[in-house]
Amino acid sequence: MNTIKRLDSLDKNFSSSLSSILEFESSEDESIEKTVHSILKDIKNDGDKALLNYTRKFDRLEVIYPDELEIPKEKWIKALNNIPKEQRKALEISVSRIKEYHEKQIVSTWSYKDSDNNILGQKITPIDKVGLYVPGGKASYPSSVLMNAIPAKIAGVPELIMVSPTPDGHINNMVLAAASLGSVDRLFAIGGAQAIGALAYGTETVPRVDKIVGPGNSYVAYAKRKVFGTVGIDMIAGPSEILIICDGKTPAEWIAMDLFSQAEHDELAQSIMLCPDLDFIDEVENQINKLLPKMPRFDILKKSLSNRGALIKVKDLSEACDIANMIAPEHLEISTENANELVPLIRHAGAIFIGRFSSESLGDYCAGPNHVLPTSRTARFSSPLGLYDFQKRSSLINISEKGSINLGKTASILANSEGLQAHAASAQYRIDGKNHDRR
Amino acid sequence: MNTIKRLDSLDKNFSSSLSSILEFESSEDESIEKTVHSILKDIKNDGDKALLNYTRKFDRLEVIYPDELEIPKEKWIKALNNIPKEQRKALEISVSRIKEYHEKQIVSTWSYKDSDNNILGQKITPIDKVGLYVPGGKASYPSSVLMNAIPAKIAGVPELIMVSPTPDGHINNMVLAAASLGSVDRLFAIGGAQAIGALAYGTETVPRVDKIVGPGNSYVAYAKRKVFGTVGIDMIAGPSEILIICDGKTPAEWIAMDLFSQAEHDELAQSIMLCPDLDFIDEVENQINKLLPKMPRFDILKKSLSNRGALIKVKDLSEACDIANMIAPEHLEISTENANELVPLIRHAGAIFIGRFSSESLGDYCAGPNHVLPTSRTARFSSPLGLYDFQKRSSLINISEKGSINLGKTASILANSEGLQAHAASAQYRIDGKNHDRR
Repeated sequence: MNTIKRLDSLDKNFSSSLSSILEFESSEDESIEKTVHSILKDIKNDGDKALLNYTRKFDRLEVIYPDELEIPKEKWIKALNNIPKEQRKALEISVSRIKEYHEKQIVSTWSYKDSDNNILGQKITPIDKVGLYVPGGKASYPSSVLMNAIPAKIAGVPELIMVSPTPDGHINNMVLAAASLGSVDRLFAIGGAQAIGALAYGTETVPRVDKIVGPGNSYVAYAKRKVFGTVGIDMIAGPSEILIICDGKTPAEWIAMDLFSQAEHDELAQSIMLCPDLDFIDEVENQINKLLPKMPRFDILKKSLSNRGALIKVKDLSEACDIANMIAPEHLEISTENANELVPLIRHAGAIFIGRFSSESLGDYCAGPNHVLPTSRTARFSSPLGLYDFQKRSSLINISEKGSINLGKTASILANSEGLQAHAASAQYRIDGKNHDRR
Repeated sequence: MNTIKRLDSLDKNFSSSLSSILEFESSEDESIEKTVHSILKDIKNDGDKALLNYTRKFDRLEVIYPDELEIPKEKWIKALNNIPKEQRKALEISVSRIKEYHEKQIVSTWSYKDSDNNILGQKITPIDKVGLYVPGGKASYPSSVLMNAIPAKIAGVPELIMVSPTPDGHINNMVLAAASLGSVDRLFAIGGAQAIGALAYGTETVPRVDKIVGPGNSYVAYAKRKVFGTVGIDMIAGPSEILIICDGKTPAEWIAMDLFSQAEHDELAQSIMLCPDLDFIDEVENQINKLLPKMPRFDILKKSLSNRGALIKVKDLSEACDIANMIAPEHLEISTENANELVPLIRHAGAIFIGRFSSESLGDYCAGPNHVLPTSRTARFSSPLGLYDFQKRSSLINISEKGSINLGKTASILANSEGLQAHAASAQYRIDGKNHDRR
């Protein structure tokens, strides 16, 4: 078996071969769904008691009182002071760059007055309370804390509640440090579906929030789907993806390593290159084979590259852009000469990395834009996480006396045509001024 | 039984009484879910053939060929020319006011350069293809066509596909006229879960879309939930709601009729007034009892007012705002002196109608803002339908050679701390410039 598949856009089976690589088995596991359902029910009914039970059971924590579930701020500050200086500095650079970018997303309340002196507008308000789920154990990423917490706080969210499981009491200091730098308000050592339930319904100890964001395993994902409606959720993230459009003039090692940098996430991650230069494709394949054995995450890389990776020969860069739009990748690298010229051709992608120096890994940590991006072709209709995910809008409608007469006529004609007579009468009353000087 | 409940915020059971009025049985009907599941499967597998079968079965349409399902544009234009002049004029006024408001929501692609000449930004693109569901039969509202189609078109959606069932071949001319004025691109006479399936998966005749918007019955709502992920969806709308804060100085008839204008939608619709003036509450109750028997939609009004309506005595207007924030209503009327002064106290509401002349019905048709609003307390975390629902963002990341060195150091420290070595190496390669002058 080859390390990575090779396709050619001129092959008559190209379209179906590509489709079969893009598809993946999303684990629709009924047993997970049932477990999640009963965990959520228990949390809803029994609050802290159920939360303690599940945390003792799943995370093997020796907790007796609910307040033991909260990790006090002093601990995070201690962690921040204890991590290596170099790492602290790196986190701080990330924070300042993520802030700089997301501050550009600030929008304001606006309104305008029409010729009848009616005032119409849109008011922006932050969400009151947001829950941030942060996975524990091996896949515990300080960068994800920053990418979620910083836009929430710039958006003005007054209470940001972070939850993260601490299996066997293990806490990641970098995650605690990131919580501190990200201005998280409270932190609870809980995880899984029970943490999602606690945030959605509230317990005696854990505050009930209005929206839950952040990635998690399949239990967490199911639980988020279930509580959606009771609270808002961000998105259900699929496996990570990178698509690289290359003209064949970037160092082949760079491209190989960029493909690795997605593939190393997990076995379902997807790494694809589109290139018109067959020799260069050979070179990248050689580099992949050469570099792979040296990689610490060899096993994951090998599986994701061979099952879901592909090097695709295309006719030209314009065809590459068409294929990219069809795939609507989470991450798109345009690794070509004059890469900027291809950007207008791209309609669907979570993030577009432009030029040979823009490696996807820079975006994951410190370029500034968010690393929470739409996966599984959802970039066709959704966006990176941003300030807008932590705010909502209310329409403002202030109608003058004159306006109520003019608009009332139109409204009442349309309401009657829809058979909604109370709508019509309510507008008509203002026109008639019935009892209107009662005051 | 009284026509409408009376509550007092000073009662010790107030909080639980209010909760019991706010709650409603969302119909989680397993049989509907099963039916929807099998309809979607059939449409996915058999395309047009299944679509024709279901349309013959559910809408009793005598259709043999799939192209008979499309309603050609000439028919809409004919409808537009045939509706009464007064109604056409009213639709046209609505169109121009909805356009004026939603054009204020236009946002543009932006970018900035940092001190290392890295360019960071955000690109805005419309969704390629949007499906718009419009209910048929009695609850067929031309205003909903306009409220969905106009922002989609201003957002730049190139292909807007409307679907609407035509039971027994019945078509509403006002709906056709609205499709024409709203610049819909194609229209199919299909409905129910089969229409949602056709839009989500595509058939030989119906194009596959990227997002589906618009209200529908419980089959449509279930189907939208099911296909979410394959396509985007707008929201799952609950029963309509109005909350009126009144100082007791608006004509009581106006308030009574405003309460009716939500209650007439359906039996689950909710109408609540908050007022500090007990005499005025009596007056409103009297008006309700007086006006109700004359209303054509008496049966619906009676049920929704008695089951889900309430007149609530509050201490003062500031407490009224607190309760409003807790309820997070779809429509909020502030019918008071100096209503503007209360607006800053409102954190959660779909639309805020300010002042005695701003009746909710004006917002439903022609004030300008969208009438598709978050229901069932979801205004805590979501927004009115808007341009932003028909566009998405892509991050732009263009890193300079110098930037790749500076950012690469930070990224590589953080990637290593997270155990993601390929991420670190990919950043490091740019720093080392490995083979970087290969070109």
